[in-house]
Amino acid sequence: MSTKATFYHAGCGVCVDAEQQFAASLDPSKFDIEIVHLGEAPSRLAEAEAAGVKSVPAFVIDGQPYHINFGASVDDLK
Amino acid sequence: MSTKATFYHAGCGVCVDAEQQFAASLDPSKFDIEIVHLGEAPSRLAEAEAAGVKSVPAFVIDGQPYHINFGASVDDLK
Repeated sequence: MSTKATFYHAGCGVCVDAEQQFAASLDPSKFDIEIVHLGEAPSRLAEAEAAGVKSVPAFVIDGQPYHINFGASVDDLK
Repeated sequence: MSTKATFYHAGCGVCVDAEQQFAASLDPSKFDIEIVHLGEAPSRLAEAEAAGVKSVPAFVIDGQPYHINFGASVDDLK
Protein backbone atom coordinates (compact mmCIF):
# COMPACT_ATOMS: atom_id res chain seq x y z
CA MET A 1 0.00 0.00 0.00
CA SER A 2 1.20 3.51 -0.77
CA THR A 3 2.10 5.85 2.07
CA LYS A 4 0.22 9.14 2.07
CA ALA A 5 2.59 12.09 1.49
CA THR A 6 1.25 15.65 1.44
CA PHE A 7 3.43 18.49 0.21
CA TYR A 8 2.33 21.89 1.55
CA HIS A 9 3.63 24.99 -0.16
CA ALA A 10 2.76 28.61 -0.83
CA GLY A 11 4.03 29.18 -4.32
CA CYS A 12 7.27 30.87 -3.27
CA GLY A 13 10.58 30.26 -4.99
CA VAL A 14 11.89 27.99 -2.24
CA CYS A 15 8.66 25.99 -2.43
CA VAL A 16 8.60 25.56 -6.18
CA ASP A 17 12.20 24.46 -6.17
CA ALA A 18 11.55 21.91 -3.40
CA GLU A 19 8.47 20.70 -5.21
CA GLN A 20 10.42 20.03 -8.36
CA GLN A 21 13.25 18.28 -6.53
CA PHE A 22 11.23 16.29 -3.98
CA ALA A 23 7.54 16.07 -4.63
CA ALA A 24 8.13 15.15 -8.24
CA SER A 25 10.82 12.69 -7.29
CA LEU A 26 9.46 10.44 -4.58
CA ASP A 27 9.00 6.89 -5.76
CA PRO A 28 5.42 6.82 -7.08
CA SER A 29 5.16 3.13 -6.26
CA LYS A 30 5.70 3.94 -2.58
CA PHE A 31 3.82 7.21 -2.14
CA ASP A 32 0.40 8.63 -2.80
CA ILE A 33 1.42 12.29 -3.19
CA GLU A 34 -0.89 15.25 -2.79
CA ILE A 35 0.31 18.81 -3.38
CA VAL A 36 -1.50 21.55 -1.45
CA HIS A 37 -0.97 25.25 -2.22
CA LEU A 38 -1.87 26.91 1.08
CA GLY A 39 -2.13 30.32 -0.56
CA GLU A 40 -4.90 29.04 -2.82
CA ALA A 41 -6.44 26.65 -0.29
CA PRO A 42 -6.32 28.50 3.06
CA SER A 43 -9.00 26.14 4.35
CA ARG A 44 -6.27 23.49 4.60
CA LEU A 45 -4.14 25.58 7.00
CA ALA A 46 -5.73 24.09 10.13
CA GLU A 47 -5.03 20.56 8.91
CA ALA A 48 -1.41 21.47 8.12
CA GLU A 49 -0.92 23.04 11.53
CA ALA A 50 -2.51 20.07 13.26
CA ALA A 51 0.08 17.85 11.57
CA GLY A 52 2.85 20.05 12.99
CA VAL A 53 3.67 22.16 9.93
CA LYS A 54 5.43 25.36 11.06
CA SER A 55 6.74 26.62 7.73
CA VAL A 56 6.47 25.81 4.05
CA PRO A 57 7.61 24.03 2.03
CA ALA A 58 6.95 20.95 4.14
CA PHE A 59 6.00 17.35 3.67
CA VAL A 60 3.70 15.41 5.95
CA ILE A 61 4.50 11.76 5.43
CA ASP A 62 2.58 9.20 7.40
CA GLY A 63 1.44 11.99 9.75
CA GLN A 64 4.98 13.21 10.47
CA PRO A 65 6.06 16.74 9.41
CA TYR A 66 9.32 17.36 7.54
CA HIS A 67 10.24 20.99 6.92
CA ILE A 68 12.49 21.70 3.99
CA ASN A 69 14.70 24.76 4.30
CA PHE A 70 12.63 27.80 5.22
CA GLY A 71 10.34 29.48 2.74
CA ALA A 72 7.53 31.12 4.73
CA SER A 73 6.08 30.80 8.20
CA VAL A 74 2.60 29.31 8.32
CA ASP A 75 1.63 32.31 10.46
CA ASP A 76 2.38 34.62 7.54
CA LEU A 77 -0.15 32.79 5.38
CA LYS A 78 -3.13 33.52 7.64
CA MET B 1 20.82 10.21 -16.64
CA SER B 2 20.33 9.99 -12.91
CA THR B 3 20.69 13.11 -10.79
CA LYS B 4 23.27 12.89 -8.04
CA ALA B 5 21.65 13.15 -4.60
CA THR B 6 23.77 13.04 -1.45
CA PHE B 7 22.12 12.61 1.94
CA TYR B 8 24.31 13.89 4.81
CA HIS B 9 23.46 12.78 8.31
CA ALA B 10 25.03 12.20 11.70
CA GLY B 11 23.21 9.17 12.99
CA CYS B 12 20.82 11.13 15.22
CA GLY B 13 17.15 10.22 15.60
CA VAL B 14 15.97 13.04 13.33
CA CYS B 15 18.47 11.92 10.70
CA VAL B 16 17.59 8.24 10.77
CA ASP B 17 13.92 9.05 10.52
CA ALA B 18 14.52 11.38 7.56
CA GLU B 19 16.73 8.79 5.92
CA GLN B 20 14.04 6.17 6.11
CA GLN B 21 11.34 8.52 4.82
CA PHE B 22 13.31 10.33 2.12
CA ALA B 23 16.60 8.77 1.16
CA ALA B 24 15.01 5.36 0.87
CA SER B 25 12.07 6.79 -1.03
CA LEU B 26 13.42 8.87 -3.86
CA ASP B 27 12.70 7.36 -7.21
CA PRO B 28 15.76 5.18 -7.91
CA SER B 29 15.28 5.62 -11.64
CA LYS B 30 15.78 9.38 -11.24
CA PHE B 31 18.47 9.59 -8.55
CA ASP B 32 21.88 8.22 -7.87
CA ILE B 33 21.74 8.36 -4.05
CA GLU B 34 24.74 8.39 -1.76
CA ILE B 35 24.36 8.39 2.03
CA VAL B 36 27.16 10.03 4.03
CA HIS B 37 27.41 9.69 7.83
CA LEU B 38 29.42 12.78 8.80
CA GLY B 39 30.11 11.38 12.25
CA GLU B 40 31.90 8.43 10.71
CA ALA B 41 33.33 10.31 7.72
CA PRO B 42 34.42 13.71 9.08
CA SER B 43 36.67 14.12 6.05
CA ARG B 44 33.51 14.84 4.06
CA LEU B 45 32.53 17.84 6.23
CA ALA B 46 34.36 20.35 4.02
CA GLU B 47 32.57 19.08 0.93
CA ALA B 48 29.18 19.27 2.70
CA GLU B 49 29.87 22.81 3.87
CA ALA B 50 31.04 23.86 0.43
CA ALA B 51 27.67 22.70 -0.92
CA GLY B 52 25.92 24.93 1.63
CA VAL B 53 24.97 22.34 4.25
CA LYS B 54 24.36 24.11 7.59
CA SER B 55 22.70 21.30 9.53
CA VAL B 56 21.92 17.64 9.17
CA PRO B 57 19.97 15.83 7.97
CA ALA B 58 20.28 17.48 4.58
CA PHE B 59 20.21 16.50 0.94
CA VAL B 60 22.38 18.00 -1.72
CA ILE B 61 20.62 17.41 -5.02
CA ASP B 62 22.24 18.64 -8.17
CA GLY B 63 24.52 20.85 -6.05
CA GLN B 64 21.65 22.51 -4.18
CA PRO B 65 21.28 22.01 -0.38
CA TYR B 66 17.93 21.06 1.19
CA HIS B 67 17.83 20.97 4.98
CA ILE B 68 15.23 18.74 6.56
CA ASN B 69 13.97 19.84 9.97
CA PHE B 70 16.88 20.43 12.33
CA GLY B 71 18.90 17.59 13.77
CA ALA B 72 22.39 18.93 14.47
CA SER B 73 24.46 21.91 13.36
CA VAL B 74 27.40 21.04 11.15
CA ASP B 75 29.54 23.11 13.54
CA ASP B 76 28.73 20.66 16.34
CA LEU B 77 30.19 17.80 14.29
CA LYS B 78 33.67 19.30 14.05
